[in-house]
Amino acid sequence: MSPPFGKVLIANRGEIALRVLRTCRDLGIAAVAVYSTEDRDSEVVRLADEAIHIGPAPAKRSYLDIAAIIQAAAQSGADAVHPGYGFLSEDPDLAEVCEKEGFVFVGPRASVLAGLGDKSVARGLMAGAGLPLLPGSLEPLAGRAAAERTAAEIGYPLIVKAVAGGGGRGMRVARGPEDLAAAYGEARTDARAFFGDDRVFMERYLERARHVEVQVLCDAYGGGVHLGERDCTIQRRHQKLIEETPAPGLPAELLDEMRAAAVRGALAAGYTGAGTFEFLVDDQNRFYFMEVNGRIQVEHPVTELATGVDLVREQLRIAAGEALGFGQDAITPGGAVIECRVNAEDPDRGFAPAPGVLTEFRPPGGPFVRVDTHGFAGLRISPAYDSLLAKVVVWGEDRDTAIRRMRRALGEFLVAGKGVKTTIPFLRQVLDHPDFRYARHTTALAERMTARATPR
Amino acid sequence: MSPPFGKVLIANRGEIALRVLRTCRDLGIAAVAVYSTEDRDSEVVRLADEAIHIGPAPAKRSYLDIAAIIQAAAQSGADAVHPGYGFLSEDPDLAEVCEKEGFVFVGPRASVLAGLGDKSVARGLMAGAGLPLLPGSLEPLAGRAAAERTAAEIGYPLIVKAVAGGGGRGMRVARGPEDLAAAYGEARTDARAFFGDDRVFMERYLERARHVEVQVLCDAYGGGVHLGERDCTIQRRHQKLIEETPAPGLPAELLDEMRAAAVRGALAAGYTGAGTFEFLVDDQNRFYFMEVNGRIQVEHPVTELATGVDLVREQLRIAAGEALGFGQDAITPGGAVIECRVNAEDPDRGFAPAPGVLTEFRPPGGPFVRVDTHGFAGLRISPAYDSLLAKVVVWGEDRDTAIRRMRRALGEFLVAGKGVKTTIPFLRQVLDHPDFRYARHTTALAERMTARATPR
Repeated sequence: MSPPFGKVLIANRGEIALRVLRTCRDLGIAAVAVYSTEDRDSEVVRLADEAIHIGPAPAKRSYLDIAAIIQAAAQSGADAVHPGYGFLSEDPDLAEVCEKEGFVFVGPRASVLAGLGDKSVARGLMAGAGLPLLPGSLEPLAGRAAAERTAAEIGYPLIVKAVAGGGGRGMRVARGPEDLAAAYGEARTDARAFFGDDRVFMERYLERARHVEVQVLCDAYGGGVHLGERDCTIQRRHQKLIEETPAPGLPAELLDEMRAAAVRGALAAGYTGAGTFEFLVDDQNRFYFMEVNGRIQVEHPVTELATGVDLVREQLRIAAGEALGFGQDAITPGGAVIECRVNAEDPDRGFAPAPGVLTEFRPPGGPFVRVDTHGFAGLRISPAYDSLLAKVVVWGEDRDTAIRRMRRALGEFLVAGKGVKTTIPFLRQVLDHPDFRYARHTTALAERMTARATPR
Repeated sequence: MSPPFGKVLIANRGEIALRVLRTCRDLGIAAVAVYSTEDRDSEVVRLADEAIHIGPAPAKRSYLDIAAIIQAAAQSGADAVHPGYGFLSEDPDLAEVCEKEGFVFVGPRASVLAGLGDKSVARGLMAGAGLPLLPGSLEPLAGRAAAERTAAEIGYPLIVKAVAGGGGRGMRVARGPEDLAAAYGEARTDARAFFGDDRVFMERYLERARHVEVQVLCDAYGGGVHLGERDCTIQRRHQKLIEETPAPGLPAELLDEMRAAAVRGALAAGYTGAGTFEFLVDDQNRFYFMEVNGRIQVEHPVTELATGVDLVREQLRIAAGEALGFGQDAITPGGAVIECRVNAEDPDRGFAPAPGVLTEFRPPGGPFVRVDTHGFAGLRISPAYDSLLAKVVVWGEDRDTAIRRMRRALGEFLVAGKGVKTTIPFLRQVLDHPDFRYARHTTALAERMTARATPR
């Protein structure tokens, strides 16, 4: 098998840059890292075939600087650019500039990204493909009066969301008419601040839902498969903390419907590459389309451990114009997989970032444990970036075995450094919580536990 | 599922002690570590529920001291003793004392261990069960004259082996009649030194063979299954360096026969627990029984990654008197798995131990990589013990993918410390060698490469 590309530039940092580099190595592709001044001693810089400095923190001056990234791609002679997640991964501008400058963008086409990135457009498209939506506005809200009219139609609680949103940013809940003005105003302010686009829309808000997403892979020739689902119900402030597959305690028919809906939606959108369809499931086991994540996701290893498929490899192959090469029957997920996100945050202080220099770092290992981390003893965790330090992923033949393995793995994990705190103690509390154990949990669980948490 | 034991004492050190502890944790069993003075800062001591000091190095005064181990078991109130591999793992005396003192020995019965430990008895037993043996003497050789007579019958090259041998110790090759006297004399001297028993026997020596072993699990009720084979052909001085499954390039019928032979042999021996049947395969694809390893083996993770079965868990369940609970049909190995042993040795100096203090230690990670190690930045590797520092194990859907992943994983592995060298450079040379790539390798390959190696 010849490599899909000769050289790939990785337009990211941290654990995902390392993750992409690993697959490049596996495939015999030369990997080019780009790095900020803060990241000069990172693992990806140590391991890359070439490493190009693209500027200082903040990300705006380096990892979000399209010109700098394109220049690095040109300088290194890369064939393709892999954007990872976050940063520019869903930015149609990067995809478009890549297309223009002759670099393959490892992701969907710019026009597809632009459509899916506009939540209004995406909702319309998916409604057309027969995916169920939460009651809400298809069009952006045209002012306060329109917001009030729409709210009256939808009913409360509702959520105001940025049209250009994603990653849990630019969202405000209104529990009753008295909250509406503030929610509308604040969502617009956030939307402008985060996305430079203050258009918002509105939909019914589910207080206690299950967050279930379906991984798809589509090639450029109409081939599309799903790789099962991931349950990401454990979140705090719309940020995922624990993900698992299969989604526990949900009816098999529901999961089948969601998987089929995701493939249908992806094909309708002309999607290519690896993508994720996010759904909410209400307490009546009805599901609703939320959004498409047009990139590799943080929690993709969950699917890799269950299926044996290297998703980054498939991304690269598809981007190089290869056909999928396998059908739905070839995907046979097995066992139960759980991922925990170990963030450098203090769970007892509202998950505030708790960066610093790692003096000790001993990740777990042994049977059926995978760790994706950019950490090592000596790493200076920069407050300029996302606090994700490590993903611990375990496989078990059933969910109970996987939960017990995860408890063990987290129990082994030694992370120490002045000022450094991690989410490990909180993650262990969730694993031990009867609602999680018995799969009765909803998106409200982690927040409820945080509210009750006492300083340790 | 209730845990098979309440508390288990781990009568070992290093990576295997940690390995056993991990499964104890997974099962909700309290784990008691024993440790020597040299090992007081080890990972297993950090992580055990209790840790009991049993003496200083050398092992004779601690890990080989049956009385000290039994005392620790009594003191901690352990229900069972897991011996790991090496040290006392195949010592019928430990098994017997455990039986007498009311501790469950996690392994076969003392009488079975004693029988299999005597190569003469084991050969007779397996010949009776219809397993093919290399031409050789069934009885220990009764002196020089008997050795000459037997040699004339068998033909050259031949190997003189300790009856009580194992682990590649107490073996001497004679390529012609002129070597016989020396080989016989030196094998006896070694046998006396290593095993306190100078009885030796003789068998035909295969210069260029494949070493293939079959993993079995047997319960106390006549239930027995195999879990596929491991090819351990890459060895230097009879010490394994690389192990993999499935055995590449061998006919499926041959492998089926070997697997069936192993189960047949295990049941004939009244074997219980996890055991390994070692075979040699000659250049005509004929196989010959060599020996049974009546314990968990260093390379057991290869089988775990291919099958999803936790072998240490099965050992504990069987030792607790549980039936296997699954038949041969439940074992469905998938993909290709390779393990590399990263030893603190200098390949350029005849694999001499190269211990020291680890200043940097960054094991590989990411997709489809498992690491079993007791290493960490700051560990003082003691020259008193085995040089195994880490086992890197990778899974791939096929052998080529697994080899490329292993190259990547070893390429990431950062081990540094004054005086510390590792087998990593040599392992990478083997992975790149065309004989290994195309599965044309034999047990002679690593020695041949070492002979040619130039200092770096």
